[in-house]
Amino acid sequence: MSTAIPRPGPLPGTLQVRDGQLRHLLTIEGLGRPLLEQILDNAESFASLNEQGVKKVPLLRGKTIANLFFEPSTRTRTTFELAAKRLSADVMNLTMSASSTTKGETLLDTLRNLEAMQCDLFIVRHAEAGAAHFIARHVAPNIAVVNAGDGRHAHPTQALLDMFTIRRHKGDLSSLRVAVVGDVLHSRVARSDIHALNTLATGEVRVIGPRTLLPAGVEQLGVQVYHDMDKGLRDVDVVMMLRLQRERMHGAFIPSEHEYFQRYGLTEERLALAAPDAIVMHPGPANRGVEITSEVADGPRSVILEQVTYGLSVRMAVMAMVMGVKDAFDT
Amino acid sequence: MSTAIPRPGPLPGTLQVRDGQLRHLLTIEGLGRPLLEQILDNAESFASLNEQGVKKVPLLRGKTIANLFFEPSTRTRTTFELAAKRLSADVMNLTMSASSTTKGETLLDTLRNLEAMQCDLFIVRHAEAGAAHFIARHVAPNIAVVNAGDGRHAHPTQALLDMFTIRRHKGDLSSLRVAVVGDVLHSRVARSDIHALNTLATGEVRVIGPRTLLPAGVEQLGVQVYHDMDKGLRDVDVVMMLRLQRERMHGAFIPSEHEYFQRYGLTEERLALAAPDAIVMHPGPANRGVEITSEVADGPRSVILEQVTYGLSVRMAVMAMVMGVKDAFDT
Amino acid sequence: MSTAIPRPGPLPGTLQVRDGQLRHLLTIEGLGRPLLEQILDNAESFASLNEQGVKKVPLLRGKTIANLFFEPSTRTRTTFELAAKRLSADVMNLTMSASSTTKGETLLDTLRNLEAMQCDLFIVRHAEAGAAHFIARHVAPNIAVVNAGDGRHAHPTQALLDMFTIRRHKGDLSSLRVAVVGDVLHSRVARSDIHALNTLATGEVRVIGPRTLLPAGVEQLGVQVYHDMDKGLRDVDVVMMLRLQRERMHGAFIPSEHEYFQRYGLTEERLALAAPDAIVMHPGPANRGVEITSEVADGPRSVILEQVTYGLSVRMAVMAMVMGVKDAFDT
Repeated sequence: MSTAIPRPGPLPGTLQVRDGQLRHLLTIEGLGRPLLEQILDNAESFASLNEQGVKKVPLLRGKTIANLFFEPSTRTRTTFELAAKRLSADVMNLTMSASSTTKGETLLDTLRNLEAMQCDLFIVRHAEAGAAHFIARHVAPNIAVVNAGDGRHAHPTQALLDMFTIRRHKGDLSSLRVAVVGDVLHSRVARSDIHALNTLATGEVRVIGPRTLLPAGVEQLGVQVYHDMDKGLRDVDVVMMLRLQRERMHGAFIPSEHEYFQRYGLTEERLALAAPDAIVMHPGPANRGVEITSEVADGPRSVILEQVTYGLSVRMAVMAMVMGVKDAFDT
Repeated sequence: MSTAIPRPGPLPGTLQVRDGQLRHLLTIEGLGRPLLEQILDNAESFASLNEQGVKKVPLLRGKTIANLFFEPSTRTRTTFELAAKRLSADVMNLTMSASSTTKGETLLDTLRNLEAMQCDLFIVRHAEAGAAHFIARHVAPNIAVVNAGDGRHAHPTQALLDMFTIRRHKGDLSSLRVAVVGDVLHSRVARSDIHALNTLATGEVRVIGPRTLLPAGVEQLGVQVYHDMDKGLRDVDVVMMLRLQRERMHGAFIPSEHEYFQRYGLTEERLALAAPDAIVMHPGPANRGVEITSEVADGPRSVILEQVTYGLSVRMAVMAMVMGVKDAFDT
Repeated sequence: MSTAIPRPGPLPGTLQVRDGQLRHLLTIEGLGRPLLEQILDNAESFASLNEQGVKKVPLLRGKTIANLFFEPSTRTRTTFELAAKRLSADVMNLTMSASSTTKGETLLDTLRNLEAMQCDLFIVRHAEAGAAHFIARHVAPNIAVVNAGDGRHAHPTQALLDMFTIRRHKGDLSSLRVAVVGDVLHSRVARSDIHALNTLATGEVRVIGPRTLLPAGVEQLGVQVYHDMDKGLRDVDVVMMLRLQRERMHGAFIPSEHEYFQRYGLTEERLALAAPDAIVMHPGPANRGVEITSEVADGPRSVILEQVTYGLSVRMAVMAMVMGVKDAFDT
């Protein structure tokens, strides 16, 4: 695809929210606490249904959802595809690079065609920041867009499922200390998580990492910065580990993975510095032995697999909401 | 696939029509006006349902449709897959080259196996002319075949959706002047469109293009031939642009794309030569700046995106008809 | 996937059978005659329904089936996908090599994630013997595993559909002579078929092939060994041809395909040595002219395509049984 995606720039809040309803989900910024909590509440309905053994509901029967993955990601695509099928929607998986470029079709032409085929919802994954915004700005009024990760910018459904997981384990976030640990610089997950934690008025948000892996001016996001892992972990209630984005490191950001593990790897010993009932999170897939040990990842404090399960409920809630399903949550 | 596909040769009319019913859809030739109009009428039912917000019907529930794409085409495959899902059929996407050749399986073996798996309908796309005919001649009596494009030969569902689009905008075709413009030589779409226009007794059919891109003896198809775009466009009611098949040009058919645009590109100025309410069509994806300007492609006369939308209704009608659904259109 | 799969070793019978019910399907060994016959009886129900024109049943509606194909096989994947869709399950096709290795995810992490996404059944195809066992040993208690072929070890659904086909044509197996012909050494199908034939107390089981293509000690499987095709075929009721696994032959197992055909290819003349009503089977895809002539493969004695059809009924039965559907077969 040769169409250059413009940088997101200042976001008009009205793009993703209209009349107080979720129209698209592009980023956590500007979403507002009531709407964010409404998503979590709706996800709670799906999670409860699920725990009662009800995995499939007919809410989006007859709707067509297109997975537009410009960047390959089997994991993320699979969770969106499963969420869509459990809402009884029809799903089209479109791997975008191959088909649309070989015939010289531009992104906008592709969008117009999918609109004309009466798709209802686009799930967009793209290596460039701002791609989902660009698409949301250009789609027809009856089509919704969900950002499934754009460059280093945002991954809002991941942040929502993280908040859902914390809330399920800890309830209200206002008295919590939460640490986000690792490669914040390359992580759209970290960016979205920090905005979500702030939106929910989390007691204290810390970021922990080497200077080379923290964005300049990260303090302006309303977080406490720690370069010393042991100090940063002290008394936190939630440890959100990040994946070391080895595939995105084009320079020498860390001396070696071994040294990184020595300084920032989450071990049982380090975890003992956190609150006694602290939970450990990771967006997956974890680099075991690099940012986290298997003992911790598979240990009693880890809620990593719950994050995956809740991810489905959260994505079902988001899809139903952007599709304007009103009575989804009254049953 | 090493099996050589024989050239189509003279077509026994009975292959695709039996007892006046559509058995397969292989080509527009020999289809006859009543049957062609019946397809359009049935497509009208689906388009109307669709416009009332009903996108999915249970007509083909329990049926299995196999997309056999020997030539990759995400766009066309997607429209057939969507049409099948909206008829509630189960769809199998089979990319044919890889699997069947690596194990030395012949085309006929593959067909026999798919028959034994009780597939009901094959959608066939192939780079060789005659492939869909070959398959239709060899499938079991209970299986239907729809040609989704074979070499330079035919693309009948495209022609049908083009006729549907013209009829919706212009009503009866007998008083219309229609121009087919561009690379007729390499275009299965052009061939099928010309046959369809003639079958519907279109007032006047013109082809416009350089000598190098018109097939020898094209006049015998019952068309007026123009090499001068401005003359050819004069007073036409419908302009059907063709895609310049750059990927199929193995020789020097045109001096340069720039010069092609100068002589045959559809601009606002040129379009002004046509009738005041002329519509502009293109099978997509358009080479903007080569055969058509963006102003025209996205302008008020363009019905290009309607073609895509109607394509779904037409393909639903064809699938339902070849599957012998009788009461599809009585609801 | 860098995780080494341990060799299967002695199989705890309880792994695939629990309380007399089929929990997983990993291998024919240790399955026992009552359970094997129950699978065939249940498949009979689906085959009968099918012959009455009922192709789709709602038995697994709301269930999620993941096709985990570590080794590509369009044919086998397609039959499992079709069987799952005809049970109304949701199907996820996961091509495993690409996604899980590029991000350094281990097999166990992948399994844990699919469990967390609440998949219900894994269909596993893998180039290494023991892979499905390994997965079955490590999945959560509520998840079932079906082996769709692991290395040279086992392909139990193929053996079951072969038994189903024999039973449909010949009834009781105790008075039958069955010959398994060809490349037994590289064939998981042969191994599973021989175990199934013995479990059903087949009158006489013969293997026919050159020394280089029979495993050492094959007699210990309770079979008669023939190196002379003509002698081995004499008076048999069932001829089970194997595919010459050319892609697995890393050494010089046969002098040439031509010479192989001369000695072991099934021709009309050779088939005349078998019982007058002998049937000919092949797991497909056949190497025509190498292990079998087209005359025989397409001839009146061949039941090769019936095997494909019955394969769907057998796979539907296995899936329903490992998913614990109790009243599947009472309708």
